[in-house]
Amino acid sequence: MTDWQIIDGSITAPKGFKAAGITAGLKPSGAPDLALIYSETEAIAAGVFTTSQVRAACVDYCRQRLQAKASARAILVNAGQANAGTGKQGWDDAVECAQLVAQGLGLSPESILLASTGVIGQRIKMDILRQGISPLVQSLSSTGGDAASKAIITTDLVPKAIALETEIDGRPVRIGGIAKGSGMIHPNMATMLAFVTCDAAVSTSLWQQMLSRAADKTFNQITVDGDTSTNDSLFALANGESRTAAITEMGPNAEKLEAMLTEVCQYLAKAIARDGEGATCLVEIQVSGAADDESARAVARTIAGSSLVKSAIFGRDPNWGRIAGAAGRAGVKFDQNDLQISLGQYKLMDQGQPLEFDRVAASNYLKAAAEGAYLQDDTILIQVSIGNGSGNGTAWGCDLSYDYVRINADYTT
Amino acid sequence: MTDWQIIDGSITAPKGFKAAGITAGLKPSGAPDLALIYSETEAIAAGVFTTSQVRAACVDYCRQRLQAKASARAILVNAGQANAGTGKQGWDDAVECAQLVAQGLGLSPESILLASTGVIGQRIKMDILRQGISPLVQSLSSTGGDAASKAIITTDLVPKAIALETEIDGRPVRIGGIAKGSGMIHPNMATMLAFVTCDAAVSTSLWQQMLSRAADKTFNQITVDGDTSTNDSLFALANGESRTAAITEMGPNAEKLEAMLTEVCQYLAKAIARDGEGATCLVEIQVSGAADDESARAVARTIAGSSLVKSAIFGRDPNWGRIAGAAGRAGVKFDQNDLQISLGQYKLMDQGQPLEFDRVAASNYLKAAAEGAYLQDDTILIQVSIGNGSGNGTAWGCDLSYDYVRINADYTT
Repeated sequence: MTDWQIIDGSITAPKGFKAAGITAGLKPSGAPDLALIYSETEAIAAGVFTTSQVRAACVDYCRQRLQAKASARAILVNAGQANAGTGKQGWDDAVECAQLVAQGLGLSPESILLASTGVIGQRIKMDILRQGISPLVQSLSSTGGDAASKAIITTDLVPKAIALETEIDGRPVRIGGIAKGSGMIHPNMATMLAFVTCDAAVSTSLWQQMLSRAADKTFNQITVDGDTSTNDSLFALANGESRTAAITEMGPNAEKLEAMLTEVCQYLAKAIARDGEGATCLVEIQVSGAADDESARAVARTIAGSSLVKSAIFGRDPNWGRIAGAAGRAGVKFDQNDLQISLGQYKLMDQGQPLEFDRVAASNYLKAAAEGAYLQDDTILIQVSIGNGSGNGTAWGCDLSYDYVRINADYTT
Repeated sequence: MTDWQIIDGSITAPKGFKAAGITAGLKPSGAPDLALIYSETEAIAAGVFTTSQVRAACVDYCRQRLQAKASARAILVNAGQANAGTGKQGWDDAVECAQLVAQGLGLSPESILLASTGVIGQRIKMDILRQGISPLVQSLSSTGGDAASKAIITTDLVPKAIALETEIDGRPVRIGGIAKGSGMIHPNMATMLAFVTCDAAVSTSLWQQMLSRAADKTFNQITVDGDTSTNDSLFALANGESRTAAITEMGPNAEKLEAMLTEVCQYLAKAIARDGEGATCLVEIQVSGAADDESARAVARTIAGSSLVKSAIFGRDPNWGRIAGAAGRAGVKFDQNDLQISLGQYKLMDQGQPLEFDRVAASNYLKAAAEGAYLQDDTILIQVSIGNGSGNGTAWGCDLSYDYVRINADYTT
């Protein structure tokens, strides 16, 4: 049951948030490359970051900041240089970024969070960034979410944004989000930046718990190319400007808020997978019958990440044997005699036995679903059951095309 | 120190072995597709198999057989149909295969091992196979290793074979091997079939230990596309026909034999990676400074398997940031300030800091190394150090090209 609605806008839909996106000149392409998200009042802040041992300076900086104080007023995002693998100088640049934004906004540097995306090993072009802060701050507006969503993208073909509205205790509560992909996308986490704003009043620890759970079911369940990034960051700000009673423990209002937060994260996660580098379609893998949800999610992720499955989908080839093969190597124990596989409405395998099916019709299903894949609910659906357990999980991915190789064969040279 | 030499031939170089390869008609292409490896006397047999939960019937069959009796006289290999995901009927087909070969050779079915490769979910075309057994047995010869090496391949561009000779206690001892790739290649194990023969006399348990250790350093350290297969099988037969004293415990002779076995496995593993689907070059990743060898091997495997690293190498792009990124997500803890990365003779990163390097020269190194990659020792070399530990490990992979996608987009349709 969903008692919320999708509304126009994104991160500036919730009350008390402004945003901006400008072309500072960080990207050689001349596309927008600097974004700012701003809350008029102190917002509690939760974050989920890459699990990589090689991390961007901004990731270490923000993790430290949020441990010291789980609130923020603004997030600066640059696209063009990832500022990862840049050592001490990269760290100093991150510290300066926070200082520059704080000065521009008349705030303390402790209230500023940072995110970077772009080429690993390249420092942020600080000369350009310094020039950009003032026009960026001047561009802040309560309709600036769109501009911000465009300024954070790199190889993405489309910006990704959503906003939802509900009522809590008779008052409107909104939540919005923007995100960017689209390569180096893999669980824990993707090269993926995502920013969620919310005007609900919620306690710090509950908000972080909700965000972590939502990320596990959404952003950590998408894969484009198996490469966890150095810069993955998901931030969620909640500023309480809806003036609803503070949500401090789980209950109906908290459950509704978490469901909305999860919905925003899922929408953005699916949008990232659908816009994966070179992708021609979105693929949803639903796994059931596992011992527990985590096992089901692991199997779903492994199928979504299989290069052979992804290549077959690009070729609109109902090669279910590769789905079975990927399920088998997920590190989850099951009896292969329990395996069931369906592709759309076509049952391909049952009780570990291949079934007769109409191969042409199944291939046509792949073609039709892929062609409509840019409609929100039109997706290639693969369903797998591995036993009689109650564990379920879903993952999202995309196909592997010539364009993925082309895009990634000459990114820096 | 290597006191052995490479000699002509492969699995029929060791004394007392014969082999054959014929076109039975299992492959639609009309290429050779049925092979037999035969020892004139009972040979001890060791095996290493896929760790997937979804396995071909032949894998389960052979694992049971070797547990019951670690010796064999012959191995039947069919290419075209993987006989994986084929349920009870697939199992019955495997049992019949062993019976047919046993009849043809006048042996007990307990002395027959099996391996299959091809499309998952397709049963072996038994009508055709039944017709093929008699001509196959009649083709057995002491120079049949080449024919066998050609009959086991699928998407491979070249057959893969090697033979080594040494002296043990003044008597010649030979070991030979053949293998096939070339997609669905990933640690534990690849879609990879490999067969090693040896005329040394060695105890059963020692031979299995040697093979498992050799596989961990070689076949389990190659990756083409991250997809562990349903059918991976590595068999090693040793028939004692060199008439040397039996090797029953570790010592100089055992160490020499294990080194030769590892060399044969490494040669074949590298040949599989070099001939990976769509590959234009072989890539060797050497990792040092880890806490232990297993950690180093894991980092090496992750870099070798990164789609972004592989795409960059296809583009001859010295994008070392992706190497750092892949190292960071290998699941091995290290301090990113210890990270060193070299590409050929070019040092790209030291102590976690990017170094100035000649990008054009580094790209030219990639071009030159890739062009020479079909010479045995001409390989793109990536060296990574993650700390001060004594753990070392090497992995091999290949680049990711348009052709990988083309080959895998329409394999069954």
